[in-house]
Amino acid sequence: MQILGMSAPLLDPRDVVFQLFDVLDTDALTARPRFAEGSREMYEAVLATARTIAEEQLAPHRQRNDEHEPTVVNGQVVLIPEVGVAVQAMAEAGFIGASLDAEAGGMQLPYSVVAAALGWFDAANVATTSYALLTSAAAHLIATFGTAAQRERFLPAMLTGHFAGTMALTEPDAGSSLADVRTTATPLPDGSGYALRGTKIWISGGDQEITENIIHLVLARIDGAPAGVKGISLFAVAKRTIDADGRSGELNGIALGGLIHKMGWRGTTSTLLNFGERTECRGELIGAPHRGLTYMFQMMNEARIGVGRAATAMACAAFQYALEYARTRHQGRPVSEKDPARPPVAIIEHPDVRRMLLEQKAIAEGAFALILECARLVDDERTAPTDTERATARALLEVLTPIAKSFPAIVGQEAISLAMQTLGGYGFAREYPIEQHYRDNRLNQLHEGTNGIQALDLLGRKVRQDDGAGLRALLERMRATVTAAQAQDDDTLRALASACTVGIERLERTTATWARASATADPALALANASAYLDLTSRVVVGWLWLRQAMAASRALATASPSHAEFLHGKRQAAAYWMRWELPKTEHLASLVADLDAIPFAMRDAWF
Amino acid sequence: MQILGMSAPLLDPRDVVFQLFDVLDTDALTARPRFAEGSREMYEAVLATARTIAEEQLAPHRQRNDEHEPTVVNGQVVLIPEVGVAVQAMAEAGFIGASLDAEAGGMQLPYSVVAAALGWFDAANVATTSYALLTSAAAHLIATFGTAAQRERFLPAMLTGHFAGTMALTEPDAGSSLADVRTTATPLPDGSGYALRGTKIWISGGDQEITENIIHLVLARIDGAPAGVKGISLFAVAKRTIDADGRSGELNGIALGGLIHKMGWRGTTSTLLNFGERTECRGELIGAPHRGLTYMFQMMNEARIGVGRAATAMACAAFQYALEYARTRHQGRPVSEKDPARPPVAIIEHPDVRRMLLEQKAIAEGAFALILECARLVDDERTAPTDTERATARALLEVLTPIAKSFPAIVGQEAISLAMQTLGGYGFAREYPIEQHYRDNRLNQLHEGTNGIQALDLLGRKVRQDDGAGLRALLERMRATVTAAQAQDDDTLRALASACTVGIERLERTTATWARASATADPALALANASAYLDLTSRVVVGWLWLRQAMAASRALATASPSHAEFLHGKRQAAAYWMRWELPKTEHLASLVADLDAIPFAMRDAWF
Repeated sequence: MQILGMSAPLLDPRDVVFQLFDVLDTDALTARPRFAEGSREMYEAVLATARTIAEEQLAPHRQRNDEHEPTVVNGQVVLIPEVGVAVQAMAEAGFIGASLDAEAGGMQLPYSVVAAALGWFDAANVATTSYALLTSAAAHLIATFGTAAQRERFLPAMLTGHFAGTMALTEPDAGSSLADVRTTATPLPDGSGYALRGTKIWISGGDQEITENIIHLVLARIDGAPAGVKGISLFAVAKRTIDADGRSGELNGIALGGLIHKMGWRGTTSTLLNFGERTECRGELIGAPHRGLTYMFQMMNEARIGVGRAATAMACAAFQYALEYARTRHQGRPVSEKDPARPPVAIIEHPDVRRMLLEQKAIAEGAFALILECARLVDDERTAPTDTERATARALLEVLTPIAKSFPAIVGQEAISLAMQTLGGYGFAREYPIEQHYRDNRLNQLHEGTNGIQALDLLGRKVRQDDGAGLRALLERMRATVTAAQAQDDDTLRALASACTVGIERLERTTATWARASATADPALALANASAYLDLTSRVVVGWLWLRQAMAASRALATASPSHAEFLHGKRQAAAYWMRWELPKTEHLASLVADLDAIPFAMRDAWF
Repeated sequence: MQILGMSAPLLDPRDVVFQLFDVLDTDALTARPRFAEGSREMYEAVLATARTIAEEQLAPHRQRNDEHEPTVVNGQVVLIPEVGVAVQAMAEAGFIGASLDAEAGGMQLPYSVVAAALGWFDAANVATTSYALLTSAAAHLIATFGTAAQRERFLPAMLTGHFAGTMALTEPDAGSSLADVRTTATPLPDGSGYALRGTKIWISGGDQEITENIIHLVLARIDGAPAGVKGISLFAVAKRTIDADGRSGELNGIALGGLIHKMGWRGTTSTLLNFGERTECRGELIGAPHRGLTYMFQMMNEARIGVGRAATAMACAAFQYALEYARTRHQGRPVSEKDPARPPVAIIEHPDVRRMLLEQKAIAEGAFALILECARLVDDERTAPTDTERATARALLEVLTPIAKSFPAIVGQEAISLAMQTLGGYGFAREYPIEQHYRDNRLNQLHEGTNGIQALDLLGRKVRQDDGAGLRALLERMRATVTAAQAQDDDTLRALASACTVGIERLERTTATWARASATADPALALANASAYLDLTSRVVVGWLWLRQAMAASRALATASPSHAEFLHGKRQAAAYWMRWELPKTEHLASLVADLDAIPFAMRDAWF
């Protein structure tokens, strides 16, 4: 097998800087008290560290971690040793607690900087990165809702990578329906905690020996709790007992029921865990009883943006590889060149290859803009100067989260598929990296709430809640960008702004028409085309973000070096691509939503 | 792991019968001399045999053939033993020579019946089936272009599964650019044949020990041949020498250079082969010198329809599985049901799941209609009563082949992705069959000419050739169906016909506008949006075929049993889905094509 000696970057470092600083003005965050210690230099140093870890600790074993997925040896899950080394490197550089308070042992970085840094990890090796990020999410929950004693006992060990964390929500019979969680928690007679009993499935990182202990955050019902989602509590359940000094001791009653073997993302163990099946399984309550789902949902927003970020990073990595391949691989001739004696050209010269690359760029960098926008809103929700700004950020985040969760996963898969297509047969070969991205990223449409669940969340909840405040805020913010673009003395920007306006007005009008029609419709029919609405809204939002990128590019062109100017022209071209090729797809989607089209809804089981 | 005890069929047997006999009136072929020995009963018996082999010999080792892909042991490719047994079963039942002349040892069946029968094999286990079908394609080439002596020496052993066949076209440095084939063929001094030297890549079934011998059909240049595609000849190169009695002897000079490890379709060995690297490699010319590519292209049409058929079959199998899963799996409650004490419903009750299933049905059965239409055109091209009908069939086939090759592969992948989504996390688990379909089918967008190559073939060649005769014939045939539908006293059919007309007119108008604009444009720009044109044309064609299915369903409803009537109602609903959800996507595509949109074309290498 001939493998090209290629060294495509995992992300385009120019784009990370452009989006964080030219578009989002992330340095301005240092004016806020929480980030007063920060500076652009510090942020760039964090990004550089992340890149180094990604390139040196993560990327080298990405393929090996896929080929040698975790196995059970003597009842114990065994990973390849590189995983533990890399997780430790991420922990030592502070990334497990990157956005946590300095007081709790974190780096107290803006979430937007953290999101960009984690993008390097995801692009390099999403499976290994998962162990660190699950720990980070669990630590974050304990930091927010745990008692001072719990924080003290768990956090230092988690942030330093000595303990891992997991999220144990789903049960085999309930799937996405958390209302049907049946795991029970019985208060222990001595008041020292709870005995848990039940089965959880799809628990990523549910067992391993790279860390001394694992803290499972488990949803369960305290005996006598109300049925449904209002009777679910959150528990910390350690794999091994922890004494007062934080030392890990004997095994708790958690039995590994089996591993699930996945198509991709194979390096992350996915387990079935039985709690309290044979021996007692002790856990401790986090926060108040029956509030577990609320707590989880506070974490879920970040987890969902995290899924979108992982999808984005994989699409970026696949795009960078395909781009270098297309520049390196010589094959075929231009359509008007029939002379077989002329040498073949680099395939980037073929218009259809260029189209595929531009679509990949528009998707990957458009999704990156969406993820960083959400990350910035997380920062703004916490630290913007005024109550109003914080409330607006929260409202925007509510609406954008289902989009950030699903759209990069969906169109990211299309981009990776185009990267595969760019490589031709080599894209399908395991000797090249694209097919692993294709397998890995497919999970992102499923975990942390499927596409269908995100669509229902957007149309059934987020668009309606607070009398539509979130969507109004979004429309207003998008229009402000359009207005600013139209004020520029730049015909290209104005044309992009006009295209964007068509999308914004279509979204607003469609939502209003839908709301009127659905007020008197069968509620199930009203939500039947939620997926089309999600697609419509996503395309408009990414269009807006591309307009904003084009504006930033135009500003930067004034002082750019010749080589950087090329990159900035590419930004404008990708924005034009989105407006002309992707945004118009919303017309058809809008018609389906506005009409409450009932063709799929009316399909009967017996007719299949 | 909990695995549901499910027994979804591989294809819907009702649909096979409906499409072959209710829609295509395949029994009528028995009025033609070539098929005079046939009967509907015989065709149904062939289909039943194919189904039995699929279910009993192929499906049981599909997963094992994926997990235990071929490996090299002592320089020899080793497959799991089930592969050889199944290939032998297909051969013994006559399927390797199913459409070949009886005189040449074939079953002389209509290609439309064969295509449906092979669909069972592809749905069951595409990797194992490949060995038989590659042999079939090679045998077909030898039967058509070989000498009587070659036919006698090769065909009996190939049709009985004792010899396998392969196609050795692609070279590492040339990829899809066959003009750059560099393998050489030097006449042997004794006039007994040629000595071949060169390297071929992606040779499926390039080595194995399940058959006594392998006949590679190799493209190479005879010394002194013209450059480019007009200097390529076709050679039969046997793995082992064959004596006058057809017995296999010593190894010929073909060295296994390595295996390519693919994302899917793993059970089919993909090899790098070196011809004449260390020891002499002898081959014999098939047909006339320098005509190799022409011969290959005569085979390629069937190979391309075969790729589309495989994609279709996998989409059908995934759909059938997802359908049964959705009926069996209980999870969640209707949106208006908040009481957690009520039992969960089968997920097919959720509108978004029903939408995903209807889209799968519309794609899978729409693609099946396309494949059977092309297969019927192969029959008509050979056996239709008049010259005019045969010429029309040929012209239609030329236009439809790139569509049949690519569209089922593309939208079939979307359908399989929706099947995965229907299963949720289980769809991503290797314990369930969907993820293998997802990996296997992805190859269909790459081999036998990528999507991009099909698009160029359609817009750059097929639409223009013979002054547009093929497209005119297609438009005429589609309009005839519309006219027939509009003559029915059935509002549903008329509405479907109207929707179809919009698509047909759009295709005609767009092609005309494009032709005018491209006459004066840069030829590379004229073809730059060929992929959009392929998508547009495909959606219109499948819409027409859905109209035809709806008409057949309406006819059949008159005399259908109550349970069969349910199936027929589903056909009409799926047709309505296509017209309302899929066909309108052509509006945007038409605009891009008609405008010769230049945004991707104008993107520069340096701007990426």
